[in-house]
Amino acid sequence: MRIGVIGSGAVGLYFGARLQLAGHDVHFLLRRDYEAITASGLTITSPAGDFRLERVKGFRTPGEMGKVDLVLVALKAFANMHLVEMVRPLLQDDTAVLTVQNGLGNEELLAEAFGVERVLGGVAIVGANRGEPGVVHHLTYGAIRLGELGGGLSPRAERLAAMVDAAGIRCEAVADLRKIRWEKLVWNIPFNGLCALTGQTPGRLLAHPSTRRLIAAIMAEVIAGGNAQGLSEPIPTHGYIEEVLARTERNSGDYRPSMMIDRLEGRPLELEAIYQIPLQHAAKRGVEMARVEMLQALLDLGEPGKDDGAA
Amino acid sequence: MRIGVIGSGAVGLYFGARLQLAGHDVHFLLRRDYEAITASGLTITSPAGDFRLERVKGFRTPGEMGKVDLVLVALKAFANMHLVEMVRPLLQDDTAVLTVQNGLGNEELLAEAFGVERVLGGVAIVGANRGEPGVVHHLTYGAIRLGELGGGLSPRAERLAAMVDAAGIRCEAVADLRKIRWEKLVWNIPFNGLCALTGQTPGRLLAHPSTRRLIAAIMAEVIAGGNAQGLSEPIPTHGYIEEVLARTERNSGDYRPSMMIDRLEGRPLELEAIYQIPLQHAAKRGVEMARVEMLQALLDLGEPGKDDGAA
Repeated sequence: MRIGVIGSGAVGLYFGARLQLAGHDVHFLLRRDYEAITASGLTITSPAGDFRLERVKGFRTPGEMGKVDLVLVALKAFANMHLVEMVRPLLQDDTAVLTVQNGLGNEELLAEAFGVERVLGGVAIVGANRGEPGVVHHLTYGAIRLGELGGGLSPRAERLAAMVDAAGIRCEAVADLRKIRWEKLVWNIPFNGLCALTGQTPGRLLAHPSTRRLIAAIMAEVIAGGNAQGLSEPIPTHGYIEEVLARTERNSGDYRPSMMIDRLEGRPLELEAIYQIPLQHAAKRGVEMARVEMLQALLDLGEPGKDDGAA
Repeated sequence: MRIGVIGSGAVGLYFGARLQLAGHDVHFLLRRDYEAITASGLTITSPAGDFRLERVKGFRTPGEMGKVDLVLVALKAFANMHLVEMVRPLLQDDTAVLTVQNGLGNEELLAEAFGVERVLGGVAIVGANRGEPGVVHHLTYGAIRLGELGGGLSPRAERLAAMVDAAGIRCEAVADLRKIRWEKLVWNIPFNGLCALTGQTPGRLLAHPSTRRLIAAIMAEVIAGGNAQGLSEPIPTHGYIEEVLARTERNSGDYRPSMMIDRLEGRPLELEAIYQIPLQHAAKRGVEMARVEMLQALLDLGEPGKDDGAA
């Protein structure tokens, strides 16, 4: 399959590399790593075994990539103002667009421009960071659950899931995309924000009793917000939260969430997709997520140019 | 009147200096500034006019101070584990103890050791910072409202208020000490904590829309928590909050709250008096202060030795 990858951070490069390794014709839109990757290829370090792609098709603009069968979107959501124009040149009649970006609102943005029927969303559970140009460190996990924006378990979603799974990324298709998006937010909303705000890893935050209680309380708010959306079945609460906390301690205690790295490296944060749109959806259904809103306010204060109001 | 000042930070030194200037026999328990003040006196810079006390009675231990008529407590509440033993040597039969410390729980600690009838509480509204040893910068305001821990408007409280007022510190006695303590918390809980957490001044936090909304939401929680205590009359909500925000912008936009300075200088924070005890009182009356609890958790995480749990 001919695949175009838009957004070549750690996640886009890692998934694209696995797909190329499995024999697909992958085209990467590159920015920071263009020189390194087109000159010397792409190296993935991974607990599942390191590998190296000597020849990688890298492009500086989507116009040079040509048409594809699948667009895989892994762009940082804070760059979404450019997303539609990046995807448009890649589309032919039956091109599917699968976004594995964080948070809410990404599928809707694509659907508004290209139609609901083109769009799938995927929730990626993967720990990966970029190393030097041309190197990606896959750290932990590596799975995608994907589904149609329009809902229901389509043959297309099943085919894509099988293809991704065959490339070494555990993948399943689901009927209720919104449910898996909210389930992911149960982790992302507390950990991405609190790690970015405090500079502490998930393990540190969980080892400290008052922040551990705070994380559980934030998760309960997100679950209430999600369950108010009329998901196909509700996200459970008590046992589920403790299970997520225990799993995080076991597997991701030292992991630095993407938002923590964005803040440390002075990039903007994905506040709209991970905080503002979920807050709006919850509020529309009458659910106040007070702690989530507070976290969003504290993160927003630290955004570049945002603390200059009183100058 | 013979007065002993316990806790000679900016507030204790400033109030004590005004009382000495008015002719009272003031004895200061000193630590950091002992050498400077006993050698060269105490200098106050103030918008009301600078002044200097050439001879100041400074002591290293309360045992050397002798008995007094009034103990004025301005100790940082995080040092309260030493408070009772500091006050005890100063007491004679009719000595009154007036604490102008921040937050809740200070009067009760004194009452448990010395009896309710000895104890008054005062809410100080004053902006003052320490300069070099022997120098205090009085920046803004300078007023105390005081009342009996036992409640009611006593002749003693009226006499003390008149004495303080005559010394150039606007002072009035009130019947409901708990009400003025909670009114002060309406300001202290959002601003002390958020300024310490973010490193931003009140003016910066108010100029940024999302943190301005957050401050108003925290104030509403504190008012609900206070009003649940059965105050003599409730603290009003909407108009009151806007009024406090506007007054803060006008008068204290650049002021650095004591907790912000404590954090910047690596001292512990007054979390028990300003957060934990108010949270307990509110919870006892069935009021959840979710944002206050979240702020307390984030501040607690940054306390010395507190982020080492996962080491």
